[in-house]
Amino acid sequence: MISLKDIARICDVSESTVSKALKGRPEIKAATRERIEMVAKRYNYQPNAIVESIQTGRSRTIGIAYNNFDDSFSGAIMNSILRCLHQNNYDVMVICWDLIVAEGAGVLSRFSRRRVDGLLLFPMAQLPSPFYLKELQNFHSLVVVIDQTWAGNEFNFVGSDNFGGANLAVDHLISRGITRIGCISNRGISSGQERFSGFQEAMARHGLTVRQSDCVNIDDCFADNQAIIRPLLDRPDHPEALVCFNDYLALEAASAATDLGMNVPRELSLVGFGKLPLGTRMRPQLSTVDQFPEEIGSRATEILLEAIESQNTVIQPQNIRIPVKLLERASVR
Amino acid sequence: MISLKDIARICDVSESTVSKALKGRPEIKAATRERIEMVAKRYNYQPNAIVESIQTGRSRTIGIAYNNFDDSFSGAIMNSILRCLHQNNYDVMVICWDLIVAEGAGVLSRFSRRRVDGLLLFPMAQLPSPFYLKELQNFHSLVVVIDQTWAGNEFNFVGSDNFGGANLAVDHLISRGITRIGCISNRGISSGQERFSGFQEAMARHGLTVRQSDCVNIDDCFADNQAIIRPLLDRPDHPEALVCFNDYLALEAASAATDLGMNVPRELSLVGFGKLPLGTRMRPQLSTVDQFPEEIGSRATEILLEAIESQNTVIQPQNIRIPVKLLERASVR
Repeated sequence: MISLKDIARICDVSESTVSKALKGRPEIKAATRERIEMVAKRYNYQPNAIVESIQTGRSRTIGIAYNNFDDSFSGAIMNSILRCLHQNNYDVMVICWDLIVAEGAGVLSRFSRRRVDGLLLFPMAQLPSPFYLKELQNFHSLVVVIDQTWAGNEFNFVGSDNFGGANLAVDHLISRGITRIGCISNRGISSGQERFSGFQEAMARHGLTVRQSDCVNIDDCFADNQAIIRPLLDRPDHPEALVCFNDYLALEAASAATDLGMNVPRELSLVGFGKLPLGTRMRPQLSTVDQFPEEIGSRATEILLEAIESQNTVIQPQNIRIPVKLLERASVR
Repeated sequence: MISLKDIARICDVSESTVSKALKGRPEIKAATRERIEMVAKRYNYQPNAIVESIQTGRSRTIGIAYNNFDDSFSGAIMNSILRCLHQNNYDVMVICWDLIVAEGAGVLSRFSRRRVDGLLLFPMAQLPSPFYLKELQNFHSLVVVIDQTWAGNEFNFVGSDNFGGANLAVDHLISRGITRIGCISNRGISSGQERFSGFQEAMARHGLTVRQSDCVNIDDCFADNQAIIRPLLDRPDHPEALVCFNDYLALEAASAATDLGMNVPRELSLVGFGKLPLGTRMRPQLSTVDQFPEEIGSRATEILLEAIESQNTVIQPQNIRIPVKLLERASVR
């Protein structure tokens, strides 16, 4: 790649003249500037962002701690974040937090060494330990936590109204005359706890009993969970409906029902979470709680960039819940 | 964040002494070095990778041009790449090529400005135009193209044996006594063309006729393609089996069959491509061609890092096809 030095040699001027000319500084004569610009353009000169970072003290890079590239819900948030950062002329550096945690090394040191201007933290396999929380607190730049939170989280947070979403799911089932409702929960993570609480609250509000035997908890919503879900349905007094932690698990429940010769929605109604693309590809099409991942991504990015641009690091952390919406399709009778 | 200057002030030594001490240079007395190291550790000092980049002329950053964060096949390749790069102590910068192409700007200028040591190029919405190809050719560092290629591609390439995979799918169907075989292809991209050729070749090899009416082509395998797939099945002389461009489309074909009251696999057998997680979540479980995305990712990364480490930019570009394997599950009768 052509350097400032190369351009200076071609134009027979000093390197400093080239630098000033490309910055449009008035002390360089128009004819010289035009000659320099022409050469820079012809040889596709690119200013060195690394040098600029040192000069400005800003890297114009956002760090993203991301883990599951094969999850389409996180992916939809990520698509939105990259669009926003691109529009605002920020570059993106990605680390897999889970990989680094497994090594026990300083999780954020890669981001620190690159002097990222801010950090977007996606859900990790395990909540940050006190050790890693301290690292986050000592981190040199702003942090926005996405989708999953934890008790006492003091960072900016953008996630879904999980409690409200589970409420909507239960209300919808009851409006269709279904009262025997169970759930597939994922209580190891905050969104799962909140959805479970929302489920319990709505059932209690309607004066309905939650039977322990109608509820199962799963630990890994990306694994094959047939061994946990099938026994929930494989008994004469199975629930009439299941509120599922996400659409992946709702598809698994639909498949368990199919394996047992049960018809969805006639014998089992299902509501998922996440409005994943698979919900319209499967049959029956899945009723689900739309979490608007594009908005989660854009809000998280906005909060981060506003704080960076204002250079105001002492503003009160925000806790934002994106409203959800029930999407009626064909999996509820 | 604490700087070299801060450490120097705390320890009452010069900045240069701090810098030398932290590099373990022998001219610094052990007692001084230990004092400096203690302070650096206590205040979580992180060396500035930006300064190091300028000193070494290497950014230890790999650029990844990525587009569909919600596609689980690309995601599996990406998970593998990030693991490999992490193990080799490289950082990752991501751009969305499609976003930048839409703006018509210099697609690679972001990577150039950051002086990335190499570039991994994931499939884009449209093949690079002559204009963008020239930009790739002029790019300052090595390029490895992943999954989709084009005629005359002169870069390193790692993808699947798509032709062979379609061969395996047809052979498998024929071994089960099925001869009336159609396909859902995606001929706008190289992997789709190769799979279609492999399908045609295998049919011809077995002396079977490919009926045009048994084959449809789709343009966007992530969209809802029911309007294209359903008419293929909604006629008395529909094909007995479909070789599908990927698992997403195979699920769509299964759903079209369900909507038409057809049983899979009794009345329609299906083979997909990609071994996506949905293939075991759906019913019947999907027979598919495993493309080993983890290996695609690790090979692509190895090729790139070997070339970077050897500083050898004139080696012959490699064209690597990862062998595929047919995975028999329950969607073939």
